[in-house]
Amino acid sequence: MKRRIQFSAGLHTFGPCADRFVSSGYKEAEHVARSIRMACQVQGLDVVELIMGAHVSTDMVNQIRKVLENTGLRVSLVLPDLFVDRKWSRGSLTSVDKDIRKSAVEEVKQSMDIAAELGCSIINVWPGHDGFDYSFQADYGLAWDQLIEGIRKCCDYRNDIQVAIEYKIKEPRTHLFLGTVGKCFLLLGAVNRKNTGVVLDVGHALFGYENAAESAVLLDKFGRKLSHLHLNDNYRYWDDDMMPGSVHTVEYLELFYWLDRIGYNGWYSLDIFPYREEGVKAATESIRFVKMLLATVKETSQEKIQDVIRKGDAVEAMALVRKMLS
Amino acid sequence: MKRRIQFSAGLHTFGPCADRFVSSGYKEAEHVARSIRMACQVQGLDVVELIMGAHVSTDMVNQIRKVLENTGLRVSLVLPDLFVDRKWSRGSLTSVDKDIRKSAVEEVKQSMDIAAELGCSIINVWPGHDGFDYSFQADYGLAWDQLIEGIRKCCDYRNDIQVAIEYKIKEPRTHLFLGTVGKCFLLLGAVNRKNTGVVLDVGHALFGYENAAESAVLLDKFGRKLSHLHLNDNYRYWDDDMMPGSVHTVEYLELFYWLDRIGYNGWYSLDIFPYREEGVKAATESIRFVKMLLATVKETSQEKIQDVIRKGDAVEAMALVRKMLS
Amino acid sequence: MKRRIQFSAGLHTFGPCADRFVSSGYKEAEHVARSIRMACQVQGLDVVELIMGAHVSTDMVNQIRKVLENTGLRVSLVLPDLFVDRKWSRGSLTSVDKDIRKSAVEEVKQSMDIAAELGCSIINVWPGHDGFDYSFQADYGLAWDQLIEGIRKCCDYRNDIQVAIEYKIKEPRTHLFLGTVGKCFLLLGAVNRKNTGVVLDVGHALFGYENAAESAVLLDKFGRKLSHLHLNDNYRYWDDDMMPGSVHTVEYLELFYWLDRIGYNGWYSLDIFPYREEGVKAATESIRFVKMLLATVKETSQEKIQDVIRKGDAVEAMALVRKMLS
Amino acid sequence: MKRRIQFSAGLHTFGPCADRFVSSGYKEAEHVARSIRMACQVQGLDVVELIMGAHVSTDMVNQIRKVLENTGLRVSLVLPDLFVDRKWSRGSLTSVDKDIRKSAVEEVKQSMDIAAELGCSIINVWPGHDGFDYSFQADYGLAWDQLIEGIRKCCDYRNDIQVAIEYKIKEPRTHLFLGTVGKCFLLLGAVNRKNTGVVLDVGHALFGYENAAESAVLLDKFGRKLSHLHLNDNYRYWDDDMMPGSVHTVEYLELFYWLDRIGYNGWYSLDIFPYREEGVKAATESIRFVKMLLATVKETSQEKIQDVIRKGDAVEAMALVRKMLS
Repeated sequence: MKRRIQFSAGLHTFGPCADRFVSSGYKEAEHVARSIRMACQVQGLDVVELIMGAHVSTDMVNQIRKVLENTGLRVSLVLPDLFVDRKWSRGSLTSVDKDIRKSAVEEVKQSMDIAAELGCSIINVWPGHDGFDYSFQADYGLAWDQLIEGIRKCCDYRNDIQVAIEYKIKEPRTHLFLGTVGKCFLLLGAVNRKNTGVVLDVGHALFGYENAAESAVLLDKFGRKLSHLHLNDNYRYWDDDMMPGSVHTVEYLELFYWLDRIGYNGWYSLDIFPYREEGVKAATESIRFVKMLLATVKETSQEKIQDVIRKGDAVEAMALVRKMLS
Repeated sequence: MKRRIQFSAGLHTFGPCADRFVSSGYKEAEHVARSIRMACQVQGLDVVELIMGAHVSTDMVNQIRKVLENTGLRVSLVLPDLFVDRKWSRGSLTSVDKDIRKSAVEEVKQSMDIAAELGCSIINVWPGHDGFDYSFQADYGLAWDQLIEGIRKCCDYRNDIQVAIEYKIKEPRTHLFLGTVGKCFLLLGAVNRKNTGVVLDVGHALFGYENAAESAVLLDKFGRKLSHLHLNDNYRYWDDDMMPGSVHTVEYLELFYWLDRIGYNGWYSLDIFPYREEGVKAATESIRFVKMLLATVKETSQEKIQDVIRKGDAVEAMALVRKMLS
Repeated sequence: MKRRIQFSAGLHTFGPCADRFVSSGYKEAEHVARSIRMACQVQGLDVVELIMGAHVSTDMVNQIRKVLENTGLRVSLVLPDLFVDRKWSRGSLTSVDKDIRKSAVEEVKQSMDIAAELGCSIINVWPGHDGFDYSFQADYGLAWDQLIEGIRKCCDYRNDIQVAIEYKIKEPRTHLFLGTVGKCFLLLGAVNRKNTGVVLDVGHALFGYENAAESAVLLDKFGRKLSHLHLNDNYRYWDDDMMPGSVHTVEYLELFYWLDRIGYNGWYSLDIFPYREEGVKAATESIRFVKMLLATVKETSQEKIQDVIRKGDAVEAMALVRKMLS
Repeated sequence: MKRRIQFSAGLHTFGPCADRFVSSGYKEAEHVARSIRMACQVQGLDVVELIMGAHVSTDMVNQIRKVLENTGLRVSLVLPDLFVDRKWSRGSLTSVDKDIRKSAVEEVKQSMDIAAELGCSIINVWPGHDGFDYSFQADYGLAWDQLIEGIRKCCDYRNDIQVAIEYKIKEPRTHLFLGTVGKCFLLLGAVNRKNTGVVLDVGHALFGYENAAESAVLLDKFGRKLSHLHLNDNYRYWDDDMMPGSVHTVEYLELFYWLDRIGYNGWYSLDIFPYREEGVKAATESIRFVKMLLATVKETSQEKIQDVIRKGDAVEAMALVRKMLS
């Protein structure tokens, strides 16, 4: 672990954090400029993620850039809005409506341009409404054709920006088409473009019953496709978006070990929803907690860890974790 | 099944149905009067549930009553708002803030008065923010003392209104104090008042890994505490609030059999969130689907069903279901 | 649906069905010949699956063939034993022990020979112990190299037998390497041989939070890889191996619709564990139940179903199901 | 934490650990005397749990007592066999067969006598087959009557032995009647005898989506019913019976804090299934790991912890955990 790890956070961390019951948000909504200033208060935070529409747009990009320059904060990546605007509610890239599909591709292209203007080399595409809720509600094969075609069009728009796909097994649909790390390989193989990648959201991996370290290793091994990392935690059933390490402490230790071993050099980005917490405090503590876990891994002999893993013995693995936490 | 079953629906069925991503709602927000008129369009719907603040308040009660009288629609019950206003975000009846706890009891009392004015005999108390998210975040024993004390104060306020508690294992907290049917018995036993009951939300039972029929039977058996019924469905991991019977068709058949057998004579109330569907259509189809299932049970010999249950043989149970669905 | 659907069952259906508590089995163990005779009593059963070691071996193959010829029963496929013998407990194709890995490949090759002798064109490879239980217990990348290499060796052994891989998210390990339909594509792509395929176990799909119809469609669409089908049901958390349709009735309707639409022409094979039920009765009822569901789909206009799916409207999907079940 | 904590383990820890695939066991079966000698090799292990039939019986009790005396090992408690013998497969205390129900009560009574002879004051009653798998397979109300009657008969047999009930949400049935901590209160209230209690199996709590600390506090608060503790871990979906703390490290810290605060003075008993591990090693490491967690809690100011809990602030809770693990 020689590289200095750089921390990122979604700007929504400092927003109102609504849910379906408290739809006005658990906190007052803030102007983007105020959110950015809040982000600056987080010790150790290097960069932020921006969501199109909510945080940035073609019209606002210069304005936002100025605010950023004034604060010294940079942007890690941009997320095209395929999940906030109600028009995507029955799907974006896989909508039954041709115009919506076209509009979704346009949204992604615009986000690529804005990313470039903000100095980013990556966008984070999360087709969160592309899926289904009920049986007999989706033409699975057609949807995949549309997904492949849509992503390919985006990739071909400009090859200086990497199109990183974020997978998730459910929410806001009960089933998302792009649910697992395995399906990302299927998609990227079919899309067959160089400027593709995958966003590993640790919480998404966990509540899809993946081991996040395993997913990271596979993404790296088969095509070096691990583009970005979202850190958060949950209780395995839902995307609770809690502070990372709060529940799956040991699995986070293992993930951080493997990220170093595979030479991941992207951001460590918080994707938490601090509904009932003050955003700055939650982000600050999250980074502290992650740094503690990183230090714990670093202080352990990497040869020892490698040796334990090689043997595959659970008792030795447990003893290793015990020593790490002692 | 001699009684005519009466259908109810939460008035939120006809609202915008927001979630944390589409916080402005999947549909345009409507005035309450408009929602009521939408409810009237649902064939077979007899009554509606009203949420305090969102649909009714002390100031609005006369106005709402007039709208209802004009339409002929009645109110099944009132839900005090312990879950919409952001002030409850860290708990209502179990808040660490004494004033919030007091305010929560006041809210419930007001809802009892309004229920009485609207001709209801029951309120639906769902302390949805009363729980915790993280380890070391709750004093479990103290919270239960507060819960017991709060509910008891509400019960004692006026004994002509039944205080029916709705349990749920999670959401919006990762853990709710009142998570399971078993814990309702613990609470009601400790509260020790006659005018208490339980709202069985079928989806809550399902994603708490309960069999809803079993929960209904237990609530009836131990003190006749089954006060109200919320119908919806999900995939066992989250409160998807889908149309009832869409996933757990067979378990719904069993539930409807037992509701008849125990002589449940309350409402059959829809508690669905038709995010991507038109509310009137979703409610109409839900009632049709439920009626189909009810008819399926009714057309089967009750003696035959009883006989199969008595034997406890899975193959016979399966053959019974097959004949029901043939 | 013009083809006559042929039913298969694992011969273990008629065995003792042990678990970790009742390790001697819920029923008396039977000789293989007796199990075969039991299978013959199941109305509508055409073929059986045999597990190496438990039901057939190089030494026994002639003897078993005679018993089969006497009864008229045929064999759908053979499963190499990578999951019964205790020697595989820390992995078969991905064991840390080179000799075990070699032995696993030998086991698969033998099963291919036996399959050929019994007139089958397919084997069912389930590497059930290939996975991990704890963090820091597996070298994920190395394991995948071994998995790819092992399967490739098997494929290359004889190309007249199809090597069909069965995926499962957990059990008997807490995590299996080959857990999801998506990972099967990753594996088969890397193996890169023609005589590969996938066994879709509906229960495995369900408790991995897949929609089985979607998985079937994807397997067909991307390379026509749907080789075999295991029918059973569960409550989404564990491989309960219940009679098919008992829980996920609607999802089974959807699956059967799609299997017909994609032209699946393999077996419909029961993979149930009737611990507390008489095996012949459980298999007989399972086939009856499946036939009822198949008839339900058949009696519905395929154009109507296609039309509903194309629109993607949940209310119409629900109405369709209602009409199917009415 | 002034009391010396005493560690116990189920004697099955040192047995073959079978499952449904490897029904002969992952290791060679051993004589009971050999298992006891293995238990003696576990550093820090004070006592063992014995299962009737498997480890002890009326005939064998003197023999076992001698072996124990020779080794210096004592017995923490006895488990009546309501889950190993195949005769219980469709229920023990709630069987539809009156003779089986009677036989189950006899089994419990015998275990009480044996417990007394072995110097124990408690038995661990786990009615693991008392439940159901399918819809329409159980008469829930009748089953509860039988459960109450059966446990009451056991309690009345001799009041010097405490009848401690172990709850579990599923396995080996898909649904157990006594699934949650809440239902234990319902049962014990109905049984209404002094010599009752509850066994809190941490893994059972976790995969029933309980927070084990909360369950412990409630069991203590409402009648001081926390009789015994089973330590193990899992991934929330199944009773994986892994080494404690391997997954839910933070929740274990919280549990150990609360056990001390409520003054729990029972055993800390391992209930793990080390399928692929050597039993002595797995038990030894488990105790070491638990001791590490206990020390971590002890080294933290109890006032500080209490203060954090009182405030209910997630960020402070997270900071507390971070300091504990640093």
